[in-house]
Amino acid sequence: MNLLNALLDNHLHQGNELGLDPRRVELKRAIDMNDRALRRIVLGLGGRAHGVPREGGFELTVASEVMALMSLAQDFADLKRRLGRIRVGFTYEGKPVYAEDLGAVGAMAALLKQAFLPNLVQTAEGNPAFVHMGPFGNIAHGTNSVRASRFALGLADYVVQEAGFATDLGLEKFMNVVARTSGLVPEAVVLVATIRALRYHGGQDAYEIPDPKAVERGLANLAKHVENVELFGYRPVIALNPFPTDALEEVALVRAFAEERGLTFAVSEVYAKGSEGGLELAEKVLEALSLPHQYRPLYPLEAPLEAKVETIAKEVYGAQGVEWSEEAKKALKAAKKEGCEALPVVMAKAATSLSDNPRLRGRPTGFTVRVTDLRCRLGAGFVVVYMGGIETLPGLPKLPQALKIDVDEEGNIRGMDY
Amino acid sequence: MNLLNALLDNHLHQGNELGLDPRRVELKRAIDMNDRALRRIVLGLGGRAHGVPREGGFELTVASEVMALMSLAQDFADLKRRLGRIRVGFTYEGKPVYAEDLGAVGAMAALLKQAFLPNLVQTAEGNPAFVHMGPFGNIAHGTNSVRASRFALGLADYVVQEAGFATDLGLEKFMNVVARTSGLVPEAVVLVATIRALRYHGGQDAYEIPDPKAVERGLANLAKHVENVELFGYRPVIALNPFPTDALEEVALVRAFAEERGLTFAVSEVYAKGSEGGLELAEKVLEALSLPHQYRPLYPLEAPLEAKVETIAKEVYGAQGVEWSEEAKKALKAAKKEGCEALPVVMAKAATSLSDNPRLRGRPTGFTVRVTDLRCRLGAGFVVVYMGGIETLPGLPKLPQALKIDVDEEGNIRGMDY
Amino acid sequence: MNLLNALLDNHLHQGNELGLDPRRVELKRAIDMNDRALRRIVLGLGGRAHGVPREGGFELTVASEVMALMSLAQDFADLKRRLGRIRVGFTYEGKPVYAEDLGAVGAMAALLKQAFLPNLVQTAEGNPAFVHMGPFGNIAHGTNSVRASRFALGLADYVVQEAGFATDLGLEKFMNVVARTSGLVPEAVVLVATIRALRYHGGQDAYEIPDPKAVERGLANLAKHVENVELFGYRPVIALNPFPTDALEEVALVRAFAEERGLTFAVSEVYAKGSEGGLELAEKVLEALSLPHQYRPLYPLEAPLEAKVETIAKEVYGAQGVEWSEEAKKALKAAKKEGCEALPVVMAKAATSLSDNPRLRGRPTGFTVRVTDLRCRLGAGFVVVYMGGIETLPGLPKLPQALKIDVDEEGNIRGMDY
Amino acid sequence: MNLLNALLDNHLHQGNELGLDPRRVELKRAIDMNDRALRRIVLGLGGRAHGVPREGGFELTVASEVMALMSLAQDFADLKRRLGRIRVGFTYEGKPVYAEDLGAVGAMAALLKQAFLPNLVQTAEGNPAFVHMGPFGNIAHGTNSVRASRFALGLADYVVQEAGFATDLGLEKFMNVVARTSGLVPEAVVLVATIRALRYHGGQDAYEIPDPKAVERGLANLAKHVENVELFGYRPVIALNPFPTDALEEVALVRAFAEERGLTFAVSEVYAKGSEGGLELAEKVLEALSLPHQYRPLYPLEAPLEAKVETIAKEVYGAQGVEWSEEAKKALKAAKKEGCEALPVVMAKAATSLSDNPRLRGRPTGFTVRVTDLRCRLGAGFVVVYMGGIETLPGLPKLPQALKIDVDEEGNIRGMDY
Repeated sequence: MNLLNALLDNHLHQGNELGLDPRRVELKRAIDMNDRALRRIVLGLGGRAHGVPREGGFELTVASEVMALMSLAQDFADLKRRLGRIRVGFTYEGKPVYAEDLGAVGAMAALLKQAFLPNLVQTAEGNPAFVHMGPFGNIAHGTNSVRASRFALGLADYVVQEAGFATDLGLEKFMNVVARTSGLVPEAVVLVATIRALRYHGGQDAYEIPDPKAVERGLANLAKHVENVELFGYRPVIALNPFPTDALEEVALVRAFAEERGLTFAVSEVYAKGSEGGLELAEKVLEALSLPHQYRPLYPLEAPLEAKVETIAKEVYGAQGVEWSEEAKKALKAAKKEGCEALPVVMAKAATSLSDNPRLRGRPTGFTVRVTDLRCRLGAGFVVVYMGGIETLPGLPKLPQALKIDVDEEGNIRGMDY
Repeated sequence: MNLLNALLDNHLHQGNELGLDPRRVELKRAIDMNDRALRRIVLGLGGRAHGVPREGGFELTVASEVMALMSLAQDFADLKRRLGRIRVGFTYEGKPVYAEDLGAVGAMAALLKQAFLPNLVQTAEGNPAFVHMGPFGNIAHGTNSVRASRFALGLADYVVQEAGFATDLGLEKFMNVVARTSGLVPEAVVLVATIRALRYHGGQDAYEIPDPKAVERGLANLAKHVENVELFGYRPVIALNPFPTDALEEVALVRAFAEERGLTFAVSEVYAKGSEGGLELAEKVLEALSLPHQYRPLYPLEAPLEAKVETIAKEVYGAQGVEWSEEAKKALKAAKKEGCEALPVVMAKAATSLSDNPRLRGRPTGFTVRVTDLRCRLGAGFVVVYMGGIETLPGLPKLPQALKIDVDEEGNIRGMDY
Repeated sequence: MNLLNALLDNHLHQGNELGLDPRRVELKRAIDMNDRALRRIVLGLGGRAHGVPREGGFELTVASEVMALMSLAQDFADLKRRLGRIRVGFTYEGKPVYAEDLGAVGAMAALLKQAFLPNLVQTAEGNPAFVHMGPFGNIAHGTNSVRASRFALGLADYVVQEAGFATDLGLEKFMNVVARTSGLVPEAVVLVATIRALRYHGGQDAYEIPDPKAVERGLANLAKHVENVELFGYRPVIALNPFPTDALEEVALVRAFAEERGLTFAVSEVYAKGSEGGLELAEKVLEALSLPHQYRPLYPLEAPLEAKVETIAKEVYGAQGVEWSEEAKKALKAAKKEGCEALPVVMAKAATSLSDNPRLRGRPTGFTVRVTDLRCRLGAGFVVVYMGGIETLPGLPKLPQALKIDVDEEGNIRGMDY
Repeated sequence: MNLLNALLDNHLHQGNELGLDPRRVELKRAIDMNDRALRRIVLGLGGRAHGVPREGGFELTVASEVMALMSLAQDFADLKRRLGRIRVGFTYEGKPVYAEDLGAVGAMAALLKQAFLPNLVQTAEGNPAFVHMGPFGNIAHGTNSVRASRFALGLADYVVQEAGFATDLGLEKFMNVVARTSGLVPEAVVLVATIRALRYHGGQDAYEIPDPKAVERGLANLAKHVENVELFGYRPVIALNPFPTDALEEVALVRAFAEERGLTFAVSEVYAKGSEGGLELAEKVLEALSLPHQYRPLYPLEAPLEAKVETIAKEVYGAQGVEWSEEAKKALKAAKKEGCEALPVVMAKAATSLSDNPRLRGRPTGFTVRVTDLRCRLGAGFVVVYMGGIETLPGLPKLPQALKIDVDEEGNIRGMDY
């Protein structure tokens, strides 16, 4: 991404043959740091030798289009095709300019060559695992690379795939975007719950302390997630990820919740006991594989972009409707004109609520989600829809975790516990 | 470096408890890209939520103080001490502010933990080699990490160390800074020459074509490098790195040059024939180890900074004198006040000339070098002296090499030949 | 305004005793030039000696709060009170900072001393006229100074006051803001129409050429303006400002329009024949003074701000409703908190349409006006409400009028004809 | 100046037909305010609708080229010719672009039409005086307009002209630039001294208190000014502008100084007693008119620019030599290339010292003046030479005078006493 930016600003500097309008460059540089001061910058300052002045900015590497398209690309040819379709901006005449117009594709692919190979790592017990690509689930599509999944399917009988940030973000995007694009459709769905989160969604701020009443109220949130899984044609296995502070009475409430709905339930003690602790869950999942299921994306690709957003907002989030800002309306019009109508959408939304308001807990109703911007990502092959002013480059808090981290004389890192 | 910057801008954003003056932040962010448009930027724009507006910029990662101090640090304790001494800027009252004042040291050390371990790689023939740290010789001190050298000395009888960019840059810095700081003093010095470079320094632009006259003239340049090695107390072995376009007559000229001066000479055919091709040179180097030598840094650390610069400029570059810009004079005064007088200096100078003017070839005389700026690097433990407007973040040329690079369908990189 | 800005940036530069947040400075500098490049700037660049970096901008002098409050101030004491209440921004803690906090009031008043005295000029026939203060009717309240009106009332039996930009802008603001604040209530209202404008509002782009059909359609626009005058308790005199291209048939249409409604009508030939040409109109106006009228502002000052805006939008513009952008909602909330609820509003709206969309002609219906921002002007004593993205610093067109202007050798200006 | 800038940025915005490089625009906007935060700005921010981003800045109106050329222009034709020759910047290819290329001349002349007419005002006693144009003597050529002088010569037998800031600035520029350009050569020269300034130049900071020793030492400064007048071919009349704090003994020292040198001396009590108080001086000046004098500019116009600067620095300032910064050397080379070699020079230098160091008092010797920049002003008809980092837009002090100024209820300004 930064190579592409450097080539772009060099193109402007060296005479701007393509007639690219410096005010209409969309591309952002990428950085792996929570650094809000880089969100909006003026670059190319200092006079004639130092580039052309323009407004620009950085986004988190995991939010960049390159990260997204690396995850979705099938092979090098597909990778290059997708890199070439990254739109960098517009000419003075309003014509879109793509990475391929800058001649950047080959060099970008060369830089990404090693990164494009899935990383095979092992768990503490020696089991193989692929950790490859990390597009965040709130600001991108949220799952590891299609290539890693395919490699894994060639190596094992059962492959477990994480789809980050609950059913409103990770699952929705996996089903509507990743599974559809790659053809890798799941056989079963596991929904992981924690007592802590249920207390939180039941309105309890002190979620470290047992509070069965709060858990009971919080189950409304879990119920919506169950329904969301069903929307896509699956009956989920409910897995409880236990914490030492969980009360038995609270766990019993979740188990009862599952039984009432005829859903399988298992406590997964992997964290405390290793793979031993996961046996019960594993068996329940194997059983679930034989259950009937019918993979069903929520919207047809031919639907208009507004309809796709509305379907997700209403059916998955439980919203009453969708409101578009003026800027978003303009961006929508431009996206249609550019031929992005038939792409799936990727919602950039707060992860701590089913709604786009990060402070609404439980199962919110009667809310309207607000689309603030929209961007067509031809390289990634989807349209990003921004809700509620979400930022793609976070800032550090008043007391950054970094201030607590240290390294001792032997090189051991201290202060990383959560 | 970017973590430190992010912590710094976050500190400004969160209320600026230290009273750091945003106009006097010295720190630059680092990037691994020739991207001139990032040299001078205004960051923190966009209003209250996006940091505090200030002028800043990027430099090449290899030019950053972190790269330099990683190379020189002995162990984790030393690393942390040095990180803590990075000056980030000044308060409104003019008091210096260091990385340790921002509480950044532990987290920076944690991020660098893996990078601080020397990389053991192997050559095409399976010989071990350490490739660790790359501070460029023109803008930093130019040698690999002290830790890697020490590891190597524990593993082998003979350790060869590269000190990039000829005797005016790599050797001078190795002798005056690295060897002095680390105590790792060399036993012999090899000076590598090429016929192409001799033609170039003899005034020939078409240096791919044989031109014995030009080589003869170019030997004046080599002679100065020989003298420079002698300044530090060694008699160099002259090694010729041959190219297919070298004419026998030209090689003979270099051999004669060495013999006249009583210096050992060898053609090193490692590139063409592998280790076999290096046997002659290796034997000459082993002989050289038994020659008398007396390591001798050029200046005492107690000398004033101006005197150090003048010594290097006159004795190593062959300059007539040194001229300081107003800005450099101010910076010199500030550095003295800050207690940097007793540090060694690292010159940031053009690599293509013995002088600070990149276009002067051969053995220039009668020139005055121009100091344009000076910066005290307490973490690295030296003072960087900038000459002739050298930039620490290069730009791309009109036709970047990147435009020729490609990856084929099997993932093989093409177009990287020079 | 620029003195206040200079004092403000000097305050930031000299230590910022008030703790003013550079990111929350609201003040803009003023300039008398259509210069879009000054709308959004970063200033204070260049290092420690040159101020504190921040985002800022310019607006047209006629849009500045100083121009507005000069027009409304009754005397020097009132002027100083109003100057002191100009809000310049907020502290880091969110407390508002006013011009009086910067100690700027006395010097600003001194600079304005001469400008605060009404200018008595004479017409081509030697009649006295005051030309004093020019807040534009689209972006400010649109009438000359209260002081000038008062002076005029002391000097003549009848005083004619212009209230720029039709009944939706000039009249509405005169009635709701100026007359209410100053107590200077009119005795009669003259509504000036042109055949050209009626053709334009009837859908004709070539409005220089007779087109009775278009004029007939355009009368719908005039009808709405008549109704607007009646809203405030007056029956207007319709004055036609004739052009050589008017067809008799067209003029007859307007006369018939007036008669149907029982309104007085007169053609005012002042432009062609001087005061002679205005006799008919003058007589009609004198008659009109004896008609019953009842001055009636449209909203009580105690009404909430939203209600004031809605009243104007629906009753005066004929809108269906009002939509507030997120930014405007936030600004509204802040304004209420700051105690601006009881102030009258001044709408910043396009002048070429009754709606906020400059391209809608005639008498638009069924439209919703969009509030994009809102600013509390305690010095001026009103709240500015921005609609449809109107800019307070215009830009020059592709072919600026300036390129046609010249001065001959005797100093006569050429090329200013419209 | 601001019209020209607006036309320029509009030209960039509307497609940039001339190919003007936004990084090489030299023009600054002008403002009448000590506002350091406007010295260096980035303008044209905010996206496509708001101009083209570039670095720019403001200078004081009195430092602008328009002010200078208005002072020197003879008539409207000359004014327009000079306006057209203002260089605004360079194209991407390095070709200079002038105001006439932007079509800006006519409109600029029209805006300046009234300002180009000399203002006839009257003194407290009713004597006529022209106050017209105010280019500051430290940063411009320092005298009123040639047109005003010519008008005055047509109206009175004797015309007194002020040439601001002593002989090193005002006189030098009047003689070398204004008198030569306009042909208006003076008949006599009056040198005005104050006891306060003599104390200050004698090393006394408390210059309000009598100190004959300091006055005696300070006479070295006056002596140099006398010599400077003689350099141009005149014997000055020494006028003392008395203050209530002057001691008789101190005044006697100045009188004795004049007598020793055979110079006429008079105390001018105009401030205290009106024209009555000026009778003695007036008589001495009338006598001086009959003294032999020979107007002699210091350098021929054909001399190289360096020589002109050196002549002024050595002969007028008493400097040992001149040092040129790298930037100034480049600017000098460019100026020669552009055909400015034959223009006179206008030095921008500190006004509080004969040297370019504002803190050196008395008659400094042995100093070297430092040229930091140079700018060819084809419109004004001279080359501005910047010394010692002088700024053309001052800043306000810690406690601006503005904070003490007020206006009372009757509109009287208070707090303007010095």
